[in-house]
Amino acid sequence: MKIKWIAFLLMAACNLTVTAQKPLTLEELLGGGKNYWQIQPENKYTTWWGETALETTPEEVKELVSGKTLVTVEQINEWVGKKVARNGHNLIFPYPEKSLVLVNSPQERMLVDFEQKKVEWKQSIPQQAQHQDWNAESRHLAYTVLGNLYVQTSEDKTLQISKDGSTDGTDNIVYGRSVHRDEFGIRKGIFWSPDGKKLAFYRMDQSMVPSYPQVDITSRISTTYTDHYPMAGETSHQVKVGIYDVEQEKTVWVELVGGPEDYHTNLSWAPDGKTLYIFELNRAQNDMRLVAYDTETGKFMKQLLQETSQKYVEPQHGLDFLPWDETKAIMQTQRDGYNHLYVLDVNTGNLTQLTKGNWVVQELVGFNQKQKSVLYMSNESDPRQKCLYSIVVKSGKKTALSVMDGVHSASPNYLGTAVIDRYSSPTVPRNIDLISTAKGKSQNILTAADSWVANGFNIPEITSGSIKAADGTTDLYYRMVKPIGFDPNKKYPTVVYVYGGPHAHNVQASWHWGLRGWEAYMAQKGYLLFILDNRGSEWRGLEFEQATWHQLGQVEMQDQMQGVAYLKSLPYVDAGRLGVHGWSFGGFMTTSLICNYPDVFKVGVAGGPVIDWKYYEVMYGERYMGTPQNNPEGYAKTSLLNKAGNLKGRLQVIHGYNDPTCVPQHALSFIRACADAGTQPDLFFYPGAGHNMSGRDQIHLHERITRYFEDFLK
Amino acid sequence: MKIKWIAFLLMAACNLTVTAQKPLTLEELLGGGKNYWQIQPENKYTTWWGETALETTPEEVKELVSGKTLVTVEQINEWVGKKVARNGHNLIFPYPEKSLVLVNSPQERMLVDFEQKKVEWKQSIPQQAQHQDWNAESRHLAYTVLGNLYVQTSEDKTLQISKDGSTDGTDNIVYGRSVHRDEFGIRKGIFWSPDGKKLAFYRMDQSMVPSYPQVDITSRISTTYTDHYPMAGETSHQVKVGIYDVEQEKTVWVELVGGPEDYHTNLSWAPDGKTLYIFELNRAQNDMRLVAYDTETGKFMKQLLQETSQKYVEPQHGLDFLPWDETKAIMQTQRDGYNHLYVLDVNTGNLTQLTKGNWVVQELVGFNQKQKSVLYMSNESDPRQKCLYSIVVKSGKKTALSVMDGVHSASPNYLGTAVIDRYSSPTVPRNIDLISTAKGKSQNILTAADSWVANGFNIPEITSGSIKAADGTTDLYYRMVKPIGFDPNKKYPTVVYVYGGPHAHNVQASWHWGLRGWEAYMAQKGYLLFILDNRGSEWRGLEFEQATWHQLGQVEMQDQMQGVAYLKSLPYVDAGRLGVHGWSFGGFMTTSLICNYPDVFKVGVAGGPVIDWKYYEVMYGERYMGTPQNNPEGYAKTSLLNKAGNLKGRLQVIHGYNDPTCVPQHALSFIRACADAGTQPDLFFYPGAGHNMSGRDQIHLHERITRYFEDFLK
Repeated sequence: MKIKWIAFLLMAACNLTVTAQKPLTLEELLGGGKNYWQIQPENKYTTWWGETALETTPEEVKELVSGKTLVTVEQINEWVGKKVARNGHNLIFPYPEKSLVLVNSPQERMLVDFEQKKVEWKQSIPQQAQHQDWNAESRHLAYTVLGNLYVQTSEDKTLQISKDGSTDGTDNIVYGRSVHRDEFGIRKGIFWSPDGKKLAFYRMDQSMVPSYPQVDITSRISTTYTDHYPMAGETSHQVKVGIYDVEQEKTVWVELVGGPEDYHTNLSWAPDGKTLYIFELNRAQNDMRLVAYDTETGKFMKQLLQETSQKYVEPQHGLDFLPWDETKAIMQTQRDGYNHLYVLDVNTGNLTQLTKGNWVVQELVGFNQKQKSVLYMSNESDPRQKCLYSIVVKSGKKTALSVMDGVHSASPNYLGTAVIDRYSSPTVPRNIDLISTAKGKSQNILTAADSWVANGFNIPEITSGSIKAADGTTDLYYRMVKPIGFDPNKKYPTVVYVYGGPHAHNVQASWHWGLRGWEAYMAQKGYLLFILDNRGSEWRGLEFEQATWHQLGQVEMQDQMQGVAYLKSLPYVDAGRLGVHGWSFGGFMTTSLICNYPDVFKVGVAGGPVIDWKYYEVMYGERYMGTPQNNPEGYAKTSLLNKAGNLKGRLQVIHGYNDPTCVPQHALSFIRACADAGTQPDLFFYPGAGHNMSGRDQIHLHERITRYFEDFLK
Repeated sequence: MKIKWIAFLLMAACNLTVTAQKPLTLEELLGGGKNYWQIQPENKYTTWWGETALETTPEEVKELVSGKTLVTVEQINEWVGKKVARNGHNLIFPYPEKSLVLVNSPQERMLVDFEQKKVEWKQSIPQQAQHQDWNAESRHLAYTVLGNLYVQTSEDKTLQISKDGSTDGTDNIVYGRSVHRDEFGIRKGIFWSPDGKKLAFYRMDQSMVPSYPQVDITSRISTTYTDHYPMAGETSHQVKVGIYDVEQEKTVWVELVGGPEDYHTNLSWAPDGKTLYIFELNRAQNDMRLVAYDTETGKFMKQLLQETSQKYVEPQHGLDFLPWDETKAIMQTQRDGYNHLYVLDVNTGNLTQLTKGNWVVQELVGFNQKQKSVLYMSNESDPRQKCLYSIVVKSGKKTALSVMDGVHSASPNYLGTAVIDRYSSPTVPRNIDLISTAKGKSQNILTAADSWVANGFNIPEITSGSIKAADGTTDLYYRMVKPIGFDPNKKYPTVVYVYGGPHAHNVQASWHWGLRGWEAYMAQKGYLLFILDNRGSEWRGLEFEQATWHQLGQVEMQDQMQGVAYLKSLPYVDAGRLGVHGWSFGGFMTTSLICNYPDVFKVGVAGGPVIDWKYYEVMYGERYMGTPQNNPEGYAKTSLLNKAGNLKGRLQVIHGYNDPTCVPQHALSFIRACADAGTQPDLFFYPGAGHNMSGRDQIHLHERITRYFEDFLK
């Protein structure tokens, strides 16, 4: 077992001249807490204007390095003649070479010239406009109202793209919104061409998808509202792609190839606006094609490439064209087993691998146009890290740009010549550097003090290390949080916190190793916490991720039990007092673990759990589980309805009563199955809440979770 | 304090030569239990043929006294030539002077002559026929299919009474079913005239009543089914009464007087079939009129009498005409403060009081036609009893007919000359006597042995007594169950079980003082149980009942706190470990008590609770609470949404997830209010269950309730 970093935060705290150590309360530890924001590490808010890095404050925008004021909120409002700007953080500088600031009020959008001190241009914003997408080139605004799609032109003319009708623009057929339930990297339904003169958009027909009846208890007599929810193996929605020409006020429909329930993902415009690329995937999700369509006619041009798999192919990124070569784009794929960058020649379909190794590219940050390099984040230094690199496209010359190990995020300027780089590391809560991406030279902007130490809080010891997975070879990383006042000669009740599902990880080299506030709270109450990223989680490559295919939870449990074996090997872990807690996929894992290992786990709290994958949605569910029809054994094996009778310990299931992601049918079916089997889980609902609790409910929820362990594990 | 009876059942058990004492399990104690029926006291099933008392068994029917076989199931099937009769318990002898037995199979109804040994008559039963009501005189059958009403004539012809249409006979407009949500003594919607040639029926238009969305989680994707649920102060349904003439195949509609939302209750046919009497009540429930209608024309004939009240008038019984005088009927009313029998002259409207006293008539059993007396049950001997009396109409001469004190039920023969009288008393689990109602002579049929004692079960000491209500004068009766192995020098955790609502009582002089099985279970686990019938409950007269008017729960709580004061005066009650549990109105009381007296009750389990009366139905709700519009203070004061922040102890709310009586909006609104107020109740739902748990869910539920007290009160 290797332990690379150990964050003796408790010792660090002791070294300071802080005498009385205060307990951290949930009000401090959680986002919904009253004191949460007060004790966050110091921060600076930043943005770019051309190559000038800026700092924003509620009152003004100034140059980040010199501190010289660029423009103030008060000035803008004075020049405009009314109060349109409210907060410096919301100001945007869209044009590198123009002294224009974009100001949005609920009623209008305007460009204010802060050198000429006057309004250069403005546009009204229609009432109820949602999903606003403004193109800086054309200054057209696209937006939706309910199921309809509109454009407000730069000349302030309103154009309706969707037809009004008995079906179009209703809840049954919606325009301009995200489709396929936000899977495959899809986050929106409006895609402007580079010049902002054409608009690609989604049209989703979900009239054939049954509505899940969500109950609103706040009406005088409860009412239901419907949410078209396609469940695994059942009829799915059907998506089309339209291209609207603003000048001609005309839509052409893309003549999509493939089946009616195929996924049309990661729409990407060619730089010249003549071609639209779509990563198309069959419903079975094992056959992906990158297809080019003519944006004038909507007609099929060619298929550039195809990826198939025995398990699944999952497109998640569009094409990012090289700013200096319109014939080439960066494409991300896991085809060699790890997510890497490739250069795609869109004329030939040739793909040239740019990055390579047993690690993953986590993010394409941008391009240094001068150096003709790509800026990206990867974890090549350590699976738990996310650091910035540049790679010159032609030569493949790679440069590590991050000053320090940790988990970084970077915002480049428009040329990519510099980035504002933010990170935290196990001992550094926040750091901001300004980095030149060509030279790698950096200038420190902020290194925040440890605000927990400074506030004199009682901070647990948090460490990270690795153990072997159940396959005997794969390294799995964990975080361990020791109880406050830890004494290695005592035995502590121990709680495994788990997520374990795809596209997520819990252990990373950020502040406190990614500690969740509740873990510190529990450590104060005398618990040891253990968090392990099992196979199936992200940042570790395709084989690691796909080990769970068609039997979600099975391999994950085996790995978590390796964690339990490790815990049992520690003299200070009380193996008779093991608990488990998780939310969503972690709720599924929690329920799976306590029902499959009833003699190991004494107490569990499962939040928003999947109980049977047949109640989960088509897109995510079928990728990992196939359908109930073609993988009946997998569904049967993983269904917790079939395990309800095994429950021995205490399990509380907590669910948002209006959860649109993991519908309440999961929790309700489980407690019905338990009642039928004669076992006794506990249950709680948060009426009005969705898949996660927000605001004050977070505090209530974590009081509740804590109380359950205090009642039955202590 | 008076303690009239003390049932030293424990001592009784010790006196037997039973050595090892077995614990009673929930499987023995509850109706859904596997062994429940096995350990019930011995029983005999009885019925009448004319003046001959009969005993039925699964195989045959025999004379009760002589034991001589009248007819066997096998004989009937042999004579019919197929297996139509399945169980002797289901055989009926409708004609005192004919040797005919009525046999019902799912497909047909037949009269078999058991002297002639042949089928005398038969009629087919249409598929899906519900609410079947067969008239022995005409042999016509009335029934419903979904919202429609039909008659199957004695000649086996099918007649449809409701019209088919877009509204009639649908869920919106239903025929022939019970209306006004079964309040006001209404249990059905079909009323044959005495000669069976005309049929009075209800037609309910509930299209204007919002539907409560009940969720069925057993479908592939959850679905809702609707239940038109009129909430207090909101729009109610509208009821009409039709009279169908079978010979003429024609309906006349009764030209009801009063408002469209009035209640039309207790339909009563005159013996000659020419008049229909309806007890009509305004929606405010403070103005009742007894109205006569012409059954030929449907026209209003006259108003016989009117009762009004500052609080409410609640008709619950129809007219029972004297068999020997068609101009007079027995009417029950609480107009003198107690429910008593009156003789109504239907020609003059004159009302002559027949029974009188500070006690209530609990049931009109029948008439002794020879003696011209009325047979009734009352609690004139003790408020906790129900005993049989006869009173001669002319002379008022009263005779007590019950052989023993206790809680009786009686089934008279057609002339009322004798009854089969069943009772239990605190020490007698079941007794059956055959009693001559003229002479009072009785013959013992069965005195069952104590099956708990005989089985060697560990039985707690159960006593009953009285304390003063919070008004300082009214006697309230309680039942106390002491823990098994009771030691007066120890201190015991104590659970108050409560219902407390109108039309119910918990303490009565039946076996074990009305002990509920769960109480014995808890006594075995070392708890003391205390059950008190507060003001507002039944059998005690109008003032007692109406003390709670417009502020349900308030006076009830005051009385329950008198019970708590009494408990605290007992050296063996641990006042620091008081719990409370109840269901329905008792769930409301439980939640009210723990939220209003957070320092008194440490643990509560509230089943199917009313949380705010605005979510309860119009009929029951407005009788006791008025409307949210006209009694806002009462609604505010009693709403537990306003008390959610007071919760300190442990409260588990348990609700049938498909409860059509007290809809889930109650429990869900309460937990939402608690989450908002920062308090932490617990919750459980039984998906698919209604207002009460049935079958195996009963076992699961009571394990659950018990565990909660074991977790937090022990």
